Amino acid sequence: MFKTNGFINCRHASQSMLQSTVDEKSGIATMTMNKSPVNSLNLEFLDEIKTHLNKFEKDNVRGMILTSGLQKVFCAGLDITEFYNPNPDRLAKFWTTLQDTWLTLYTTPFPTVAVINGHSPAGGCLFSMSCDYRVMVGPMYSIGLNETKLGIVAPKWFQDTMVAVIGQRKAEISLTTGRMYTTDEALQIGLVDESVPDTDSALIQGKQFLNNFKRISPWAYKMTKNIGRQPVVQWLIDNKQEDLDFVMKFMQSPSVQTSLGNYLQSLKK
Amino acid sequence: MFKTNGFINCRHASQSMLQSTVDEKSGIATMTMNKSPVNSLNLEFLDEIKTHLNKFEKDNVRGMILTSGLQKVFCAGLDITEFYNPNPDRLAKFWTTLQDTWLTLYTTPFPTVAVINGHSPAGGCLFSMSCDYRVMVGPMYSIGLNETKLGIVAPKWFQDTMVAVIGQRKAEISLTTGRMYTTDEALQIGLVDESVPDTDSALIQGKQFLNNFKRISPWAYKMTKNIGRQPVVQWLIDNKQEDLDFVMKFMQSPSVQTSLGNYLQSLKK
Amino acid sequence: MFKTNGFINCRHASQSMLQSTVDEKSGIATMTMNKSPVNSLNLEFLDEIKTHLNKFEKDNVRGMILTSGLQKVFCAGLDITEFYNPNPDRLAKFWTTLQDTWLTLYTTPFPTVAVINGHSPAGGCLFSMSCDYRVMVGPMYSIGLNETKLGIVAPKWFQDTMVAVIGQRKAEISLTTGRMYTTDEALQIGLVDESVPDTDSALIQGKQFLNNFKRISPWAYKMTKNIGRQPVVQWLIDNKQEDLDFVMKFMQSPSVQTSLGNYLQSLKK
Repeated sequence: MFKTNGFINCRHASQSMLQSTVDEKSGIATMTMNKSPVNSLNLEFLDEIKTHLNKFEKDNVRGMILTSGLQKVFCAGLDITEFYNPNPDRLAKFWTTLQDTWLTLYTTPFPTVAVINGHSPAGGCLFSMSCDYRVMVGPMYSIGLNETKLGIVAPKWFQDTMVAVIGQRKAEISLTTGRMYTTDEALQIGLVDESVPDTDSALIQGKQFLNNFKRISPWAYKMTKNIGRQPVVQWLIDNKQEDLDFVMKFMQSPSVQTSLGNYLQSLKK
Repeated sequence: MFKTNGFINCRHASQSMLQSTVDEKSGIATMTMNKSPVNSLNLEFLDEIKTHLNKFEKDNVRGMILTSGLQKVFCAGLDITEFYNPNPDRLAKFWTTLQDTWLTLYTTPFPTVAVINGHSPAGGCLFSMSCDYRVMVGPMYSIGLNETKLGIVAPKWFQDTMVAVIGQRKAEISLTTGRMYTTDEALQIGLVDESVPDTDSALIQGKQFLNNFKRISPWAYKMTKNIGRQPVVQWLIDNKQEDLDFVMKFMQSPSVQTSLGNYLQSLKK
Repeated sequence: MFKTNGFINCRHASQSMLQSTVDEKSGIATMTMNKSPVNSLNLEFLDEIKTHLNKFEKDNVRGMILTSGLQKVFCAGLDITEFYNPNPDRLAKFWTTLQDTWLTLYTTPFPTVAVINGHSPAGGCLFSMSCDYRVMVGPMYSIGLNETKLGIVAPKWFQDTMVAVIGQRKAEISLTTGRMYTTDEALQIGLVDESVPDTDSALIQGKQFLNNFKRISPWAYKMTKNIGRQPVVQWLIDNKQEDLDFVMKFMQSPSVQTSLGNYLQSLKK
């Protein structure tokens, strides 16, 4: 039915920031982000995530769980140092890789679950929302698109991804205020689907969700998901360059650089 | 105010699969599907439904209730035998008739209520969702777009119709898992508007909903509804041929034919 | 941070129908509609509202509260006398001013709160929904887009504004039936965000909402809001003339004129 051809034993498994395993019996892949200290998404890490996703697709996995191997953090989002005093070529490559990784994650031909076992701001929230289902460990963690709090802007496709999950009204207020939600608040507004007390329970619930697809034709699943997600996806496909130009221009503007500098300074303290 | 010119006495009333009556006082039409055993929507039945809807429009009815005269089934959806080993010409005519019937139902110039007094999978759910309001008899029946469970795909306009009723998030999970909802579950997610214990109560509630429009100008109603439903409608109008081509290609593919064969076999048992 | 240059002392403050003040410390503007008897939106009043909004923008206010200085009425909506036996030139100017005022209000670069301290039908509801947040005084007032009840039609951008707040399903049923909601009903469907017992509490809650933006960069706020609201806005920008033509044609049609005449007659009694 699916082939894993030893993915678990490949170079990624041991020394990498990203660990992937595929359960031979169920065909369920687990991708564990393990990049200390906070799973920040820099160019190399994004590239690795994309590579793993593509491999899962080639191996015809039947589902995937995305989770964190760190204590307390699911994913802190985009690595701010990619934006601060950037080399323009690297910044362009970084953003393009983010676009492509998101496109891959958002349109996987297999169902996906985010097991959110730690804080999940900004890009961490984006990747969670891009999965088919979200199980979050509570009650102490937080999740949200808090870009405005950093003085930056969530691009249209971040926003559309959130609108698809919680609707226009809740997305607007969430995005403009840059609000982070506790697990229970996130559950209440529909930003996550389940709240559980620990990672083990979250993994169990995640797999239970994937069991819904056991007898669903992968082709029918894939076509159905793609029809629904197509408008959001198509916007980015049609506006990749424009989206990049926007980021290149504004992220390098003096006022945003100052905001980011202050933010990085505050992190050090 | 409206003319019924003896619709109740026309050839459809007694020997037909579809019975229509118009209450002279209120101007409310009732269309009762009575095609044993499960009101499956084949070419001829769809054509008849469309004809009745067009007649209601010509007669300026003030509202319509769509219900079933069968025990336990509102409408089982599209007749699968139209897809299994099909004659291509008939398949094309069948699908085009479905498109046209849906366009007519979704844009009636009068308000419509689905009185869902039995199971309502797939096309039965689509027709329910295309009405302005849904009253469902509970607690024993089920409703949903379960296409993926049959190894097939709900086309974009099925999906958009569902999104308009329950929103993007709930529609995606419902569509990809092919889930059927009990009456109470359907009420909870907004897939139906009311749950009642029997058909008589459902008819009463349906008529009560239509009373909201007693003093509303039919022109203002029609214009208001059309503005809101236009995006979903326009997609199908703009993509009728493409939508047909998709169905012709995939429904006749060997893998889908195998799925449908297995499904039909399971029904016989 | 922001400049008020004596706005509170300008000609608008005392003898005008519209009173604006800016709190020097917080940068929060308050715009109070005070046009007896019901704050009906005629050409001149709309023009004044637009002028004040533009001034707020120039003065870099940090937020705005829109409220009423009248007893029992927030805003009764568009002045029906602008539609009844209209001078075509004035009608065109009126509608264009409405379009422009709404565009300005819907896209303010600062957060806005409607403090709905009285009834708010039709255009009053539109302006409330165009703010970022709604606090409504309860339990005795009502709000809704009740155009169909008057025999007229809420244009697409009215409808889209409502869909953005309460979603497609609730907007459709609300719009076609022309339903007015009590404060508690409005809270329940999400048409308002808070219900409070009096105007003073409403102003406090409104200011508290605006406090969310104290540490948010105005630029990040503005960009984020505009990305989300752009589709609704763009439709009107792209269809201003078409929208005007529709209004010019239908509002002057004999049947709508008769409806409006009857309505105005009923108001006099």
